[in-house]
Amino acid sequence: MLRLSTAAARLPSALTRGFASTRSVLAPNKDHHIITYPAEAFPKGFYVAATHCGIKKSGALDLGILASSTERPTAAAASMTRNVFKAAPVTVTTELLSKGKGRAAGFVVNSGCANAVTGKQGLDNAWATSNTLTQLLPKHADAHGAGSLVMSTGVIGQNLPINKLTDAIPGLVKKLDSAPDAWMDLARAFMTTDTFPKLRARTFTLGGREVRMVGIDKGAGMIAPKMGPPQPPHATLLGVIATDAAIEPAALQSALNYAVDRSFNSITVDGDMSTNDTVLVLANGAAVPDLPEISEANTTEFDTFKEELASFAAELAQLVVRDGEGATKFVEVKVTNAPSFDIANKVAKSVANSALFKTAMYGQDANWGRILCAVGYTDIPEGTVDPTKVSVQFIPAGKLKGEAPLRLLKNGEPEPEIDEARASVILAEEDLEVLIDLGAGSAESKVWTCDFSHEYVTINGDYRS
Amino acid sequence: MLRLSTAAARLPSALTRGFASTRSVLAPNKDHHIITYPAEAFPKGFYVAATHCGIKKSGALDLGILASSTERPTAAAASMTRNVFKAAPVTVTTELLSKGKGRAAGFVVNSGCANAVTGKQGLDNAWATSNTLTQLLPKHADAHGAGSLVMSTGVIGQNLPINKLTDAIPGLVKKLDSAPDAWMDLARAFMTTDTFPKLRARTFTLGGREVRMVGIDKGAGMIAPKMGPPQPPHATLLGVIATDAAIEPAALQSALNYAVDRSFNSITVDGDMSTNDTVLVLANGAAVPDLPEISEANTTEFDTFKEELASFAAELAQLVVRDGEGATKFVEVKVTNAPSFDIANKVAKSVANSALFKTAMYGQDANWGRILCAVGYTDIPEGTVDPTKVSVQFIPAGKLKGEAPLRLLKNGEPEPEIDEARASVILAEEDLEVLIDLGAGSAESKVWTCDFSHEYVTINGDYRS
Repeated sequence: MLRLSTAAARLPSALTRGFASTRSVLAPNKDHHIITYPAEAFPKGFYVAATHCGIKKSGALDLGILASSTERPTAAAASMTRNVFKAAPVTVTTELLSKGKGRAAGFVVNSGCANAVTGKQGLDNAWATSNTLTQLLPKHADAHGAGSLVMSTGVIGQNLPINKLTDAIPGLVKKLDSAPDAWMDLARAFMTTDTFPKLRARTFTLGGREVRMVGIDKGAGMIAPKMGPPQPPHATLLGVIATDAAIEPAALQSALNYAVDRSFNSITVDGDMSTNDTVLVLANGAAVPDLPEISEANTTEFDTFKEELASFAAELAQLVVRDGEGATKFVEVKVTNAPSFDIANKVAKSVANSALFKTAMYGQDANWGRILCAVGYTDIPEGTVDPTKVSVQFIPAGKLKGEAPLRLLKNGEPEPEIDEARASVILAEEDLEVLIDLGAGSAESKVWTCDFSHEYVTINGDYRS
Repeated sequence: MLRLSTAAARLPSALTRGFASTRSVLAPNKDHHIITYPAEAFPKGFYVAATHCGIKKSGALDLGILASSTERPTAAAASMTRNVFKAAPVTVTTELLSKGKGRAAGFVVNSGCANAVTGKQGLDNAWATSNTLTQLLPKHADAHGAGSLVMSTGVIGQNLPINKLTDAIPGLVKKLDSAPDAWMDLARAFMTTDTFPKLRARTFTLGGREVRMVGIDKGAGMIAPKMGPPQPPHATLLGVIATDAAIEPAALQSALNYAVDRSFNSITVDGDMSTNDTVLVLANGAAVPDLPEISEANTTEFDTFKEELASFAAELAQLVVRDGEGATKFVEVKVTNAPSFDIANKVAKSVANSALFKTAMYGQDANWGRILCAVGYTDIPEGTVDPTKVSVQFIPAGKLKGEAPLRLLKNGEPEPEIDEARASVILAEEDLEVLIDLGAGSAESKVWTCDFSHEYVTINGDYRS
């Protein structure tokens, strides 16, 4: 195992997700993406708390908990990494969800140590963390077999300083709170190389009743999630969405699967999929006392919830891209008129992951050759894309939103003249949008990515000189 | 179409493969990789010539031809890009090989303009180039229906200045030569962002006779070939291997397919597959007069040839990685004890393409967490890799070749103590080697990659400031 003392000083972000210090110096300030909300914006019946228990050297918040005050344990669903090297908390959360039949008492999250590649000791530590919280929560939760889910992010190959966690949890339970500041502290406890806490809230109407949703996530590097339901268990992007809507567990999992494909699984920073990626969604039904849970059979309500969850998850996922290591640009790659969502999504990801495209965006260069190239090598069945039907354009975004698009390629042929001056203006914005029309169907997909900058190399190159 | 005047000045490598100037300033000097050979090292019966016809602004060589003096047109096979946007020369060479039943009169190569995404005009220009050379070569070639193959590399979306090519070809035919300098000039005519000409030669024994092989290739960026036989036609890496061994066309194609998977298709610089990638192999049988052609039925000779071709192709392919844009490291990723070559190759490519791994190599950091992470997210059937059986080590290379390996991970568990001081010494070499043992079979694959440096971002970021 790498010794923390040396590791902390010398290993780069993948091994030092717990040491934000190295990062914040190098990255541009992103604090304008922080939003604070009033108390009524947060879902009812959820209580949270966070503290610095001693994992992070910086002294920053590194441990957080959440509990639901409802009599009926909250419905819970998860989407986790498909990396075959899955961290101990991923395994434990999967078992807890199956044992609790899709219900949970709450969760514990820690940053600074990923508890990944830690063998049996790692599993014991994850269980100890979970059990410590569960035993301090009202018995009814445990009675339903519902336990406390666990999430970890930080250094790989190191064991959790377990006593620091178990010693701190009782104090956290005593200070459980539903105030906006408590939620923001929980968001900070998720942070590793993140430069700002990622929290969003939304209120919408479901079945004639007003319900609320709050979401927190973290992640800046090693971001290219490919998550799936916990059976089979697989996903260092961490995210949680808590709502006071009442959704039955199976329906909640189904809605999450739909949402994740259109949000967290549609973002990329560096194309690297982590061992810890986990997104949880909790629905405690506390919006109105004794609210019956919605199932997939309640078509109208379920579809409304599914779409709200997907668009909210996309909003959260985009925050991760905005905070991408060294990122100076936020780029939406939209593929339209595709034969299917999957093909549209694969083509968009092929472009979004292209190092040549990402460096061109950094250089503010309308390099359609690289876009077309990446479309052309997408791993999809031969004949799916007809080169003579593909059109590419830049859609002005940011301050220029609404302006006419800049056409680069039409039906596989380059535009006779490209206005380089206008391209420079469009590409000078922080927000960029590329539209790729395959002219081969009616499905579409959006993928969000950032540019590839000198800062990315600096952050991850770990100079020894 | 982008105007050359502006494009030349401002667009980065993918659009300016014809303008080496922008590159050479930024990249480290790689001239120690240039090898010159005596006349007897080159295969008999091949004649070459190169010139500056006016495509490259720099005045560098940009047009080259090759012809075989043999009565029987040389057997020819090709492996080309699978990018759906395939350049005109890729289409034309494919048709010529099918029309000529695997035989060719010779080839024309130009650099500075890729003749890609150029529609019908592009096809007409590729045919005009081919026909101009064929008509100037001995009639017997044409009589066999064997034409002149074409290869182009350079700016995308621009038409060839066709008259400059057709006007220059007669002069080239007059100065066809077999001298070492002529071969080196041909290699230079292939160059775009390359910093050095890539030429290698080899002599070996086949069926008791001494035969020779010469190889030329080019490429520095947009390198992640995935080539296949010309039916269906599909590859900006360009390469040609000419041998005076006598191999029948079908056997030559079969040997090339085998060789390309173990060489050009096993290298990556930036994970981007070009629209022009093409590798040709020509076998004219001129080693000994009237040499009968080897078919796959001649098992012993065919296997010998196939293995020689594969190892020679790998040597050529590695030159491209050594010249990778901004590359400061040459990294071999070797996967052993895999269930199959394909799985070993996929796992090796997953690591070789990881931006986090490549930046770690640039930073000279023994970051096993990133290696393991990339192994874990390889897109292979679930259960193929058992995390508890995977071992990872650095094999000292370069000046340190032969020293004991540095173990990082054994059977999925990190080594208790990693000697960071020794890691720094091993990683300070230009040549690095990572060995990943899957413990799940007996197949293996080697993939060659380079690091991800600040220079890569500078070269491809096209500063406007």
